Parts: sequence; structure tokens; C-alpha cells
Amino acid sequence: MSDRIVKIDLVVHRIVLIGCLNLLLLCVMASCSQEQKTTVGLNHQSILFDKQSLALIQKEYKNIPLFNESIQEAMRQVEQEIANGIEVPVPQDLAGGYTHERHKLNYLTMQKAGNLFMITGNEKYAVYIHDMLLQYAKLFPTLSLHPSEKSYTRGKLFWQSLNDANWMVYTSQAYDCIYDWLNEEQKENLEKNLFRPYADFLSVENPQFFNRIHNHSTWACAGVGMMGLVMKDEELIQRALYGLEIDTLAVGVKDNDGGSILAPGQNRAGFLAQMDMLFSPDGFYAEGPYYQRYAIYPFVVFAASLENARPDLKIFEHRENILAKAVYALVNLADSDGEFYPINDAQKGMSYYSRELVSAVDIVYHFAGQNPELLSIAEKQEKVLLDATGFSVAQAITQGKAKPFIPKSLELRDGADGSEGGVGILRMNHSGGDINAVLKYTAQGMGHGHYDKLSYSLYENGDEVLQDYGVARFVNIEQKDGGGYLKENKTFSKQTIAHNTLVVDQNTNYGGKIDKANLHHSDRFFFDKNRSDIQIASAKDVNAYEGVAMQRTICLVADSLFEKPLVIDLFDVRAVESHSYDLPYYYFGQILSSNSNYKTNATLQPMGEKNGYQHIWEEGRSDQLPSNTKMTWMQDYKFYSWTAVTGDGDEFLLGRIGANDPHHNLRSDPMFMLRRQAKNAVFASVLESHGQYSPVSEFSTNAFSMVDNISITFQSEEFIALSIRHTGGSELRLVVCRLDNGTDTTHEIEIDAEKLVWTGPYYYQVK
Amino acid sequence: MSDRIVKIDLVVHRIVLIGCLNLLLLCVMASCSQEQKTTVGLNHQSILFDKQSLALIQKEYKNIPLFNESIQEAMRQVEQEIANGIEVPVPQDLAGGYTHERHKLNYLTMQKAGNLFMITGNEKYAVYIHDMLLQYAKLFPTLSLHPSEKSYTRGKLFWQSLNDANWMVYTSQAYDCIYDWLNEEQKENLEKNLFRPYADFLSVENPQFFNRIHNHSTWACAGVGMMGLVMKDEELIQRALYGLEIDTLAVGVKDNDGGSILAPGQNRAGFLAQMDMLFSPDGFYAEGPYYQRYAIYPFVVFAASLENARPDLKIFEHRENILAKAVYALVNLADSDGEFYPINDAQKGMSYYSRELVSAVDIVYHFAGQNPELLSIAEKQEKVLLDATGFSVAQAITQGKAKPFIPKSLELRDGADGSEGGVGILRMNHSGGDINAVLKYTAQGMGHGHYDKLSYSLYENGDEVLQDYGVARFVNIEQKDGGGYLKENKTFSKQTIAHNTLVVDQNTNYGGKIDKANLHHSDRFFFDKNRSDIQIASAKDVNAYEGVAMQRTICLVADSLFEKPLVIDLFDVRAVESHSYDLPYYYFGQILSSNSNYKTNATLQPMGEKNGYQHIWEEGRSDQLPSNTKMTWMQDYKFYSWTAVTGDGDEFLLGRIGANDPHHNLRSDPMFMLRRQAKNAVFASVLESHGQYSPVSEFSTNAFSMVDNISITFQSEEFIALSIRHTGGSELRLVVCRLDNGTDTTHEIEIDAEKLVWTGPYYYQVK
Repeated sequence: MSDRIVKIDLVVHRIVLIGCLNLLLLCVMASCSQEQKTTVGLNHQSILFDKQSLALIQKEYKNIPLFNESIQEAMRQVEQEIANGIEVPVPQDLAGGYTHERHKLNYLTMQKAGNLFMITGNEKYAVYIHDMLLQYAKLFPTLSLHPSEKSYTRGKLFWQSLNDANWMVYTSQAYDCIYDWLNEEQKENLEKNLFRPYADFLSVENPQFFNRIHNHSTWACAGVGMMGLVMKDEELIQRALYGLEIDTLAVGVKDNDGGSILAPGQNRAGFLAQMDMLFSPDGFYAEGPYYQRYAIYPFVVFAASLENARPDLKIFEHRENILAKAVYALVNLADSDGEFYPINDAQKGMSYYSRELVSAVDIVYHFAGQNPELLSIAEKQEKVLLDATGFSVAQAITQGKAKPFIPKSLELRDGADGSEGGVGILRMNHSGGDINAVLKYTAQGMGHGHYDKLSYSLYENGDEVLQDYGVARFVNIEQKDGGGYLKENKTFSKQTIAHNTLVVDQNTNYGGKIDKANLHHSDRFFFDKNRSDIQIASAKDVNAYEGVAMQRTICLVADSLFEKPLVIDLFDVRAVESHSYDLPYYYFGQILSSNSNYKTNATLQPMGEKNGYQHIWEEGRSDQLPSNTKMTWMQDYKFYSWTAVTGDGDEFLLGRIGANDPHHNLRSDPMFMLRRQAKNAVFASVLESHGQYSPVSEFSTNAFSMVDNISITFQSEEFIALSIRHTGGSELRLVVCRLDNGTDTTHEIEIDAEKLVWTGPYYYQVK
Repeated sequence: MSDRIVKIDLVVHRIVLIGCLNLLLLCVMASCSQEQKTTVGLNHQSILFDKQSLALIQKEYKNIPLFNESIQEAMRQVEQEIANGIEVPVPQDLAGGYTHERHKLNYLTMQKAGNLFMITGNEKYAVYIHDMLLQYAKLFPTLSLHPSEKSYTRGKLFWQSLNDANWMVYTSQAYDCIYDWLNEEQKENLEKNLFRPYADFLSVENPQFFNRIHNHSTWACAGVGMMGLVMKDEELIQRALYGLEIDTLAVGVKDNDGGSILAPGQNRAGFLAQMDMLFSPDGFYAEGPYYQRYAIYPFVVFAASLENARPDLKIFEHRENILAKAVYALVNLADSDGEFYPINDAQKGMSYYSRELVSAVDIVYHFAGQNPELLSIAEKQEKVLLDATGFSVAQAITQGKAKPFIPKSLELRDGADGSEGGVGILRMNHSGGDINAVLKYTAQGMGHGHYDKLSYSLYENGDEVLQDYGVARFVNIEQKDGGGYLKENKTFSKQTIAHNTLVVDQNTNYGGKIDKANLHHSDRFFFDKNRSDIQIASAKDVNAYEGVAMQRTICLVADSLFEKPLVIDLFDVRAVESHSYDLPYYYFGQILSSNSNYKTNATLQPMGEKNGYQHIWEEGRSDQLPSNTKMTWMQDYKFYSWTAVTGDGDEFLLGRIGANDPHHNLRSDPMFMLRRQAKNAVFASVLESHGQYSPVSEFSTNAFSMVDNISITFQSEEFIALSIRHTGGSELRLVVCRLDNGTDTTHEIEIDAEKLVWTGPYYYQVK
């Protein structure tokens, strides 16, 4: 029953039972005012439910544990806010401040309350939303721009329009839920005084925000479009889907991160253009998974709204199911604990447990193929959306439909047309867990990109072994510059030396110039995941350093000779002139042994003065390296050994992050590095994870490297061959093509009087 | 059936069924030779079983999951060794080498095989043990001393007699299990050629090993005594219980660790003397829990053997149940993950999951009171001994008798008579976990002791917050000096500056002289665990530094003002002359903020040249401190804030371990430190654990300290008073007595015109 029906009932009661029943009536009223429950029907085109699924949810939700738990959790949160009372303050603060956090909590709570009202029929939730919206409808017309002038697109409730668009995305869902429950007058008040002018503010009044090919604009389009769908405002819907006229954008204007407002070559705008241009054909998002996680929410939630309200658009089929691909890309851009690879500006620990991925997984499951592997991720997430998509997921899990999601090796291309390099993800499972290497050969990734062409990171069982440092930022930790980007993000984290990749003459890729970096990308050379004994990725870059051509090949090889898969790293550099080459590796744990003859320093100096080197203490050094330099360390009671081909003139350096860091903004993590003066050089190394130690039994097993020797056995313009000899005498041979990456080309070389013949860009053999 | 009965049966068969049954007979023989199962009875006085319990185990073991799993696990291990074949090599190697590890594996396997034979009746286990013992009986008479001359007491099979005693402890159990199964001739062979001469070697031939008050001798006595019990050799038993004549020991002779062979004042020897002198009345073992864990095994296993074979001795009641007390001391000397506090030479990660504690828990449960709290530890251990004690534990767990072991605050006195200081363990549980502080005011702890009088360490939920560094050693990791003590253990880990305690004039306690340190101990001043709002320990030391009297008071206080219990640290030092005082704290994680105005260094120098300072890089420093110096850091997504009373002339230093460490033998852990020049000084500080951060939701809660101010509000010869003001204005007051620790004395002081009256050595109030 809606509250109006309740009122009519009361009138009837009064007429019939005057007098003696007054006492009972009072009891009924008191009871009703506490919990006015009804079964909510659907009399408009909802963006969240259809009639059938809503009826099913209302009937069944208590029997679907995961859904019911999510309901209970939402109830606890909303009840607490209802008890707290409504607060709609005049905007004043930046992120982290009271008015910002309050308005944010308001829209999150309204959205949940809307879902709860639809499902439980308890009208207190509807009342709460409407009461709050009334206050917003009163406040909004009085607002000029937010007092802070920090943003390129100032908002109304928030310091930047982006947050206002967030408000609209969540609030449109709450409005959708109480739409039928409101009378016409109430709806008109809200739409006229709040929603429509707010939507205009986010679009026509701020084209530099609305009309970009950028995740900010996705939020704007989603907010405007979703509210348009609920309000049946076709103008808003068209605006959201197709954008404003493109000439509203000025050439050369930039946002706060240095990103261009008008994208190079941009001739369209709106949601569909964003779907076409922000993702690569494989669903990769240029800034990397940390930002893709943030960007994915408005994409999937607006798409779900469109699928509900405008199914004829077939939005999930658009561009060959690009949204589903984007979600699969995300869950694949994570280590085996579900944590995203921290490439570019990325805070570590963000994972597919985030609320954005809960939405993405539920929506893509429901609307894009019901892939049972997504269910196993939803099971781990332990929560679902409180709508038809979440119910669909929870119900399927209850029905036992979940299948394990086992990430495999894959390549994700970068660039709108897939031509701008990519990421090669190599994975091998073994009896004790998994080894997972990531080779990055993407484009720059816009303002949040790092200068780390051909960088590589390594994971074992979800733990970092060779780390990508990630961002120098403590999001929402006020003590660290209010949670914003720290100075050291630019001076260290973005620099090439902060990554496991080659640094030429101690300079950063592209001289650290973003405009130049934005013009280029690395290139895949080959990628092969089809063999069980080897998984291999090879990529090239010729632009990061002028006159320097780099090729890096990373592969995992599995052989019964070794306890776990080995990682081979072949970094091949050729230049016009001689250079100083540095190849750093950021490891964790404690050094157990090394044959490098390194001497530690009595006092510590930074490794350099600029380009990130100023932040690394030089701990030790050797310039007398054997033909194979080895280092073994222990991390989390596991042993790791690195063996590299070295020679005369090579230097081995040990370092630790932390120099010139007056506020301890950087982590004090260790690294080691090879340095070589050369024109052409090949850095060849093998990394073994082996054995373990128990501090309880005090037994160690397989504490020693099983690599007896590695050597480059052949080099020509066309090929390079590496041999890895096991202590037992067996030999692993890898030959990599330098020029021809054709899969059908047949090659032939002779090594030690033995003829090798193969087809394709590499050859691998154990003998 | 024993194998002799099987043979008789076969003879009968042959007579009756000559000829045509030969084929069948061969089949029977083949089958029998694979699995000759029988029900083993008990026809001698076993050290492991009595008839009744053995029969019960044989009948029921498959129904007791924990016991059966332990059986299965042992079977897997023993089967593998049986398949591998018997190897009894001529002794040659040191620890870690082949012959050492082989003989060690042999005795561990024999012991398990013995248990399996008794329980399953499968004779292959008995055959395996006997075959192996025959080889030992052949080898032993040919052996002179082990070729290595490193030990003060060289062994036969091993480089030190200690390991030979280990062999005897385990092998006596295996022999016990097959005793009835062997015929007289077989027993005589083993006893005459192996056991008796070996026992003589370990005792009369090596009194400097056998006759000490030291855990080495406990192993010797246990080995000799247990073998004596099985062999019914009363001479060996008496030797083990009461030692040799005391004058076999020479005055002034030392062992490899620098420990005296003849203990000061020693006039007895043997197992009973060790029980009387090696533990404090509370069961504390002077070297600390890491070594107590190692030492406890021969104590409990020999005691269990005595309880089985000589119940009249009532060994578990000896010295008011001292062995049970020692085991309870051990399980209480562990953080909430069961890991032992790493005081003195202790490798971190050792815990009550070790095999020694499995034995100790099972034996003490069975023979000393059936405390159901021990069962919950056994449940966590997930394994039990394969004898009557382990069965008793496993059965009780199956019967649901386990009760949670919830560690509480307690004090453990040190010294044979309990007069040599002790350890104060403070614990408070709160809704989100536990806070646990440890104040060390023990005696030196012999050769493995660290020079850290009044040091303190802090734990939260089993994780270190303020760490005790522990040992610089990687036990059994060959790369690190063969797993032995590293040079840096002496130059850093043992030094006072390596601990969270006061360093005077940058010197180590007692000038780092072990002979002097052995003469002294700190003293408890008071310890009170009886209040729920405060748990407090206070201790004094007047010997560590000449002319310097120190009193440290550590307390946990719980108040609804604060999210979790606070830790108050009041370090009160008074000296005859002026000194430089350093009070370091070894924390973990990353600094978020500090009001200390510290400046970081452009290059790093060691903090000093000796006494451990040479191993610490000075990262930063401030000599302009406010009246309260604060620092907040984040560790594992939890926030910690330290607030200290500081003033003019005080210095704040930031450092990191790792200088002068050419082989990276030390961990690169951070520290901060207060430095003050003064005659008398009070270092007062508060440590808060507060809030948390989620990298997934990116929300932080309670990220800021709630301590507005702390100050010393009163000082006199007799008292010192501290006030802690909460940001909301409330005040926590603590007054500590400096002279009178009587619990009945009534005191009165006036602070800010308010009169405080209380009884006992401290006063605490929230107002």
C-alpha cells in the first residue's frame, strides 16, 4: 500500500467505527507509521527493473543468501543514516571535507534506499529519499559555482563537476525507484527545480566537461542520460548518447591532469563515441586498470539502464560487446588475488572486490552472456547489486552454476583500433601455485601514464616478486597532501628508473615530455600462449629514446627439471651511438647470497641528481662481475634466484628507494641493477622461484638455484639465442627473432655445429 | 602375529598340505611378506604405552580424526623412507651436510616407525627399525670421535654430542616399540654393541656434556635415562636422574657459546637437578622462549617415560608441577598468533606449532591435569603424538572437550628461586582484536641473552608494532654462514641500541661484558593485572649502567574515549652525573606525518661507530621539538600515533638498520629515537593504534591521533604523574611511585590544587 491508500483506509475507518474504536485506531496508526509495508509495482519504464524480475525478487529474495545478505547490509547502512537524520549542507569543502563527504554519502544512501524500497516495500525508504530530494530541490536553485576554483570544470555541490555527475548517476537510480510512488506534483517539483537544470548544468553549460572522450564525460553522459531515461526526457537522452555539437570544444585547452579537452582527431562526443574510442578492441583502457576500474561504473550502469529502458539499442552488443570485453579485460588485469596490476598511476591493493567491479560483474553477467566464470568472482566479492542484475547473479550462484575463473595468459591490445601496442600477460600454474609476468608495451596512458616502455613485473601466487612501484599517492589519507598526488609521483614514480625496464643514459623515456609521449607507443612483436611448455611475449620500442631500438622478450618456461616455471628476460638494445644502459629490478625481501663481489658503501649517496635517480640510495656496487652474475634472496620464506649474463665492464648496483624524500612519501623498497656501456647490448637473465623455508620446523628445501649457467650462444642481425644449463647438465634453448615476426616464416641457424630449423618468431627446446 | 608365529604356522602348513598346496603357500608367503599384520601386545614396561591405552588406541584410532590424520601423515613419511632404503653412512659432515641430515632423518623415522608398528601391528615397521639398528650396531664400535673438532663435546655420529643425545632420545622410543618383538639374542646384540656403550659415551665418557645444568645435559640425561628405562638398566637410570659425581667438572671451562660448564654454585647434576635449577618457579627459562621451546622436548619426553615406567617418582608433581608450568609459560610467551616473543637470540616465526610444543602440549595434557584449554592449542597444531598422550588429546578433542585458550596478562619471574626479575606480559582484548605489550626485566639469559634491560615490545593481533629485532641468524639456511650465528648478531642484535630501551652515552648495558651481565638482573617493581581499565608493569634496573638508576613503567589503558587500548610508556632515569640518553623505537610501515620538524639527510651516515650504532643509518633529525612530539605512521593499513613529552635540547632522530652490513645480514627496518642530555630524565609517551584504511574502498577511518596533549604534571622524589588529554577534553591521569611499591601503602599528593589519595604503587583515573 502506498501512503495515500493508507490515508483513505483511515478515513473509512473513522466513518464506520466512530468513538469506541478510536483507541484501536490509534494503535493501528502508530504501528503503520513505523513500518508501512507494501508491494511495490512497476508503472513506468524503470532503468533498474522490469515487472517480472521485480516480482520475482520481492517474492524470493530471502531465499537467495547472497542477495539477502546484501539487502541486510544495505539496510544496516541506510537505517543508520535515517537515524542520523537528513543533512544537505551548503557546499563548501574539497574532497575529504565535511560537505563533500556528506553529499557523497547522501547519494550513496539514496541509491540503496531506493533499492530497498522497491524490494521490501517499506515506505520509510521512499520517504527518506523524497525528503532529501526536497531539500536538494530547495538548495540547488540558490547555488552558484562551488567556491573552490581548483578544477577546470567547477561543480555545484562539489568542487568539480565530476562529483556532481556522480551524484546524478546515483540519484537517478533512487529517483527511478520512487518514481511511481510520487505524485505528479512531487515529480514536477523535483524535475523542474533540480534534475533538469542540474542535467543542463552538467551538459550544455559545461561542454568542456560533457563533450570529451574521457572518463569524466562518461560520468556526465551517464548521469544526464540515466536521469533522462527516468524523466522520459528525450532531449537529455539524445544528448547523453550523442553529445553536444563538437565545436563547443576549444582546441588546445587542457584539464587539471594536463589532458586535452578535445581529443586528437575527435569528431564525435557522447556515450557511444566514448564506447568506441576509450577502449581498445580488447577492452583495454589507456590509463590502466586502476582508472579503468573507476571508469567502468558509469559505462556499465548507464548501459544497464539503456538495456532496461531502450532495449532496441542493443547497447551490450555495440562494437562487438565492447563493454563485456572491458570487464573481462579488468578481471584479467589482476593478479591471482584479484588485485589490479599497478601500472601507471595506480594505488596498490585496488582489486576486483571494489564496488565498481561488483556492479560490472553483475551487470555483464546478467546482460551479456551469463558466463558462469563471472559467478565465481561474484562469490568472492560476497555482495551483489540490489537490482535485477544482482539478483540474477545471486540466484545463479544459489543454483550452483558458478564455475572457477582461472585467469590464463592473454594479450590486450591498446589504442582505439588496437594498433598502439598492448599488455602481454603470461601465466603458468604449477602444483604449488602460479607464476605471472606482465610485459607493458602500451601507449602512454594520457596524464596518468608512466614512462616505462617495455617494463615488466612479476607475481607469484598473487604476491609481487618484481614490483611495479605504482603511484606515490595515499588516496583519501589526509596527512599525505590531502590524499592527492604527491610531488614524488612526478619526480620518482612516473620516471623510467622507477620501473623494471631499461634506462638509457639515465634519462627518462621521451625526455619525460608528455606531449611527445602521447604521440608514440611501443609495439607488440609477437605473443604466443598456445604451448604448455612456454608462454612468451616480445615487444619493441623505437621512440622512447632517440636512436635507440629496444626489444624485450619475456617468457615463462615449464620443465620438470625445475620446481616451478622459470622466467626468461631477454632485453635486446641496439643504438646508433654508444650509451650507458641501466636495467633495474625492484625486488622484495632479503639478500641471501650473490657472486657479484659487491662492496657496500660506508655512506649512502643518491644514485643521481634527476630523472628519479635522486630518490635511490646507492647501497653497494661491483664492477668485477663473473660471466654469470647471480643473486639469491628470500621473500616471505620463498627463495628467488636471478642469473644474468655479464662480463667485463658491466656494473652491478644495489639500491634502495628513499633519498631526497623529506616527508617519507616513498616506500623504502630495495632494487638491484645492471649497468653497461655499449652501443648494442643484450641483457639476458633468468629468474627462478624455488623452495621454501619454515620458521617453525626450521627446514629449508631447494634453497639453491638450479641454473648452472646461462649464455648467449648465437647472435646475428636476425637472431639471438640463449642457453640455460641446468645443474644436472640439461639445456634449455631459446632463439628469438629480431626482424621477422611472421608466424609462417621458417628459419635455420647453426649453433655449435648443430642445425636448428623452426617456423615462427621463436624457437624453444629442452635437450 | 609376530613373525615367529607366522613361521610356525608355515611349518604346520607344510606338514599337512605337502605338495598340492605349495602354490597356494607361495601366494600366502608373498602376501605375508608384504603386510604382516598382527596385534601388538605389551610384555615389558614401555616408556610410551600401558596395556590398556595401547589396546584402546589399536581399537579406536581410526575413529579419532586428529589421531588418524597424524598416523596417516607418519605413514607417508615412513613409507617414503622404507622405499628409499636404509642408509647408515660413516659420520663426516657438519650440520646441514649429508651424513648429519641422514642420521637425523634416521632417528626421526625410526621413532615414527616404532609408533606405527605398535598401533597398526604392521611388522614391516619393526623390520625396518631392526634392520637399521643392526647397521648402527655394526658401525658404532668402529667409530672414534667425529672428525670435526669444533665442539667442546664432540660426538660419534654427529659433530657434537648434543645431536648424539638427540639420536638416543628418539631411538630409545623406537627400541621400546620393538622390544617385545625382538628375541633375546637380538636385544643383547643391540644393547651390548650399541646402546650401552653409546649411553656410556654420552655420560661417563663426557661429563662436561652430561653433568651440566644446561639444556645440552637435559638431552643427555633424557637419552641415557630413556634407554635405561627400556633396557631396564638401573645404573643408566640413576645416572640420568642424579648425574655423575659433581667433581668430574672442572671450574672455569666454557662451552662453545661461552657458557660455564660448571654452573655457579652447582652441587648437583642430573635430570632432577635440571628441573630444579633451569626453570624459574613460574616455569620461565632464562634464555627465553625460543630456546625454551628447544629445551622443553627432552624434559617432557623423559618425564613422560618416567611417568609410564616409574610412576612412583611422580615426576609431573615434582617442584609443584614445574614441567607443566614450563609449558604454560611457553604458550603464554607467544603473541596471539602463537609466535614466541623473540627475546634474546630467537629466530622470528618460531611458535607453538613446532614439533616440540606438540609433544609438550600432548604430554602435559595427558599427565598433568587435562586442562581443556590445551586442547584448543592441540586443535590448532593439527597433529598429535602417536602414543597414549597424543591419543588422549585427540580423543578429548573428538569428544568436544576443548575450550579456547585466551592468553591473559601475566608476569613470569626469572631465576631459579624467582628472585631475578622477570617478564611482564600485558594484554587487552577489544572488539577488534588485542593489544599486547611485553616488558623484559629478566636476568641476562646466559650466552644467548641480549643486553636489553627494560626493553619493551608491542603487538597487535599477533603482528609486531614495536619489534624486538630477535637474532641475526638464518637457522639452516646454508647461504648465511651455514645457518649459524652471524657476526652482526653480536655487533647489532645483542646490543642495547637494537632494542626499544634506553641507551646511556651510546654504550651497551654492562659495557657489553657477559661475565658482568651474568651477575645481575633487573627487578620487578610492581605488576598489576587485576583491573579491567588498566594493566600495568613497572621494573627497575640499577646495574646495567654504573651510576644510573632506571625505572620503566608500561601500561595498557582502556577507555571508551579511545577506539583501542592506549600504551603508556614512562621511562624514568636518574643518574649521579649527566649523560646522553637515547630511547629508540623500532616500528614498521610508513610515516604519514610528524610535527617534529625533522630534516632528512642528503647523504646517509651511520649513527655511530660501535655498540650497534654503526649498523643504523641516520635518515633524519630534528633538534627543534615542540612540547609534544608526535608521529603517525601506517602499518598494514592500520594507523599508529606516538606522542611524547619533549622539550628544549631534545633531539628526534629517524634511522634505518643496514649500515656496515656487507652481506645484507640485517633487515632494513626503520626506527625513531629521542635523544636527551640530562642527569635525570623522564621519557613519557603514549602509543595509540587507531583506525584503518581500505585500499579497495579507499576509505580511511580514525586516521588521526585522539591524544591532544600529554604532560608530566607532578614530580617528586617519591612520585611522577602523567596527564593525557583527549581531544574532547577528558583527561587520563597516571601517578607512579618511584620508591615505595607496597600494595598497602597509602599515598597523597596535590596536583593543580586537587588532592589525590590512593593505596598501592600507582594511581590511575579518567576525569
